[in-house]
Amino acid sequence: MPELRKDPILGRWIIISKERGKRPTDFIIDKPDTKGGFCPLCPGNEKTTPPEVLSYGQQPHDANSPGWDLRVVPNKYPALVIEGDIDKVGEGLYDKMNGIGAHEVIVETPNHNESFTHLPHDRMAQVFFAFRDRLIDLAHDSRFRYVMVFKNNGKSAGASLEHSHSQLVALPILPRMIVSELEGSLAYYKYKERCVFCDIIHQECRDQTRIVCENERFLVITPFAPRSPFEMWVLPKKHSSAYISMDDESFGQLTAVFSECLRRLDGCIPNAPYNFVLHTSPLRSQPLEHFHWHFEIVPKLTQIAGFEWGSGFYINPTPPEDAAKYLREVVL
Amino acid sequence: MPELRKDPILGRWIIISKERGKRPTDFIIDKPDTKGGFCPLCPGNEKTTPPEVLSYGQQPHDANSPGWDLRVVPNKYPALVIEGDIDKVGEGLYDKMNGIGAHEVIVETPNHNESFTHLPHDRMAQVFFAFRDRLIDLAHDSRFRYVMVFKNNGKSAGASLEHSHSQLVALPILPRMIVSELEGSLAYYKYKERCVFCDIIHQECRDQTRIVCENERFLVITPFAPRSPFEMWVLPKKHSSAYISMDDESFGQLTAVFSECLRRLDGCIPNAPYNFVLHTSPLRSQPLEHFHWHFEIVPKLTQIAGFEWGSGFYINPTPPEDAAKYLREVVL
Repeated sequence: MPELRKDPILGRWIIISKERGKRPTDFIIDKPDTKGGFCPLCPGNEKTTPPEVLSYGQQPHDANSPGWDLRVVPNKYPALVIEGDIDKVGEGLYDKMNGIGAHEVIVETPNHNESFTHLPHDRMAQVFFAFRDRLIDLAHDSRFRYVMVFKNNGKSAGASLEHSHSQLVALPILPRMIVSELEGSLAYYKYKERCVFCDIIHQECRDQTRIVCENERFLVITPFAPRSPFEMWVLPKKHSSAYISMDDESFGQLTAVFSECLRRLDGCIPNAPYNFVLHTSPLRSQPLEHFHWHFEIVPKLTQIAGFEWGSGFYINPTPPEDAAKYLREVVL
Repeated sequence: MPELRKDPILGRWIIISKERGKRPTDFIIDKPDTKGGFCPLCPGNEKTTPPEVLSYGQQPHDANSPGWDLRVVPNKYPALVIEGDIDKVGEGLYDKMNGIGAHEVIVETPNHNESFTHLPHDRMAQVFFAFRDRLIDLAHDSRFRYVMVFKNNGKSAGASLEHSHSQLVALPILPRMIVSELEGSLAYYKYKERCVFCDIIHQECRDQTRIVCENERFLVITPFAPRSPFEMWVLPKKHSSAYISMDDESFGQLTAVFSECLRRLDGCIPNAPYNFVLHTSPLRSQPLEHFHWHFEIVPKLTQIAGFEWGSGFYINPTPPEDAAKYLREVVL
């Protein structure tokens, strides 16, 4: 018997279609594109990107020159542009504004063929530091209300460049996903006077059926009502609404679980394309009792997604309890 | 300058990235799969599907035998099952219910290589009649609250069988998309005492910039804040919340505009994969002043969709005014 499950934050229902139950080997993955050729993100080609806004390196080096371990540059083809004032206008019953924002690329490694999943911990931690540094810097710009930090890994998850990178988009509006999460978690808080994410963490630690991995400060679960097979959420165990409030020791622990769960995913489904998105409180927000920052990692494994993502109606062939079990069983 | 646009019903913001402005020829389409082999939807193979629940034919024929023009059968691999009672249970803070529902396949033509887009009008009208007949029949089952009618056209839009077909899923819950539309349109109605869709129709007919085609009773537009390049909405001009209340003459006019806009899409982007979804009021609902039934046709053209559909944050490289112009210019 299939099962309908409701996401406790968004109220979104999901069908878990056990009859179609898919195991890791049932998913066919496109081989990654290794066409080679010119890569604008490789060392030596720094001049082909817009000038960097941030770089980290183990050795001293000039800006926009080799020697970096990580580099953040404005997107050469930005979805939004940085110069100008916000101008909101109506057009009859419609609302629009000009597309002010920032669109940046976080080049995660100087090595063209190194994947995020297999970065050494100290270098993966730099990526999480870079997210924080850019969030803090962009929060100074009062035109922006939210920074969406995300990664498209693999061509079918939307990556247009092979060289490992993540992206951020600073927006003058709150994206729908965050509005819905803030509203849903506030409704729960008003009723229970507790954070729904904290309650989820409590229940998952008790049930033990959907845990992928954990350490003292972080928990990785397959969520109760996942949109995609092998979807994973990475949550800080202690309540916190803002990613930028994380302390240095937590970065090490975040890196450890993040690296582990991605390597477990890779062990189940080699080269699985995926997206991850950071969900955090709006820029310059006070600490929120009802919201809890986290990452959502959504593998892109099902072809049927087109209809489902358009309609908000998802069919998932792999129960999250099964996915968590497969992930835990991977020998690292 | 890119532009941010807000969907007036859902409150969802979209980025129109004109700088990335894509013309029809910029979209690369996978060739349709024509692997041939055994097709369970072809005449003569009726016994390989579950027994039909409906069929139309120009000549008399036995059930589950050749002679039909259109045939509706339960999905052999249903996402939900028809037998059983709804059983809602909690699991700690989570909610779930058993997966009772119906999942049916509408075989739109007996001819394996005939596309929906190019069906003669009288046969395309049968598809729209079948949607109504099944909606009316399934409304008698009080376990169901909504019937989602949709089509996945082309492999990258999720079609797993080549033979032209659409699907329906009868659900014991209201899907998120419909809940959001009902809530958004009700909020507008409370403020304006008018239907937001009627206001959209009025404004689009005055502006003329986003009209694809129309006749006396129906209008096809590219919506103001589209998720996808060449997204189209098909709306009845006269207010009506329920698809099933359409009269016979309207079916002919619906078919005429639907066929025309799909042929225009095919003229712009041959073999474009797309999904369409019928948005109508919940089963057994009273007529609603604030909701307006319609079809949404969403081409699947951008690879980046993975991230966007997961996060509710869309970047569209083709302004709907440009898309409408390209679509209007197609010579049929």
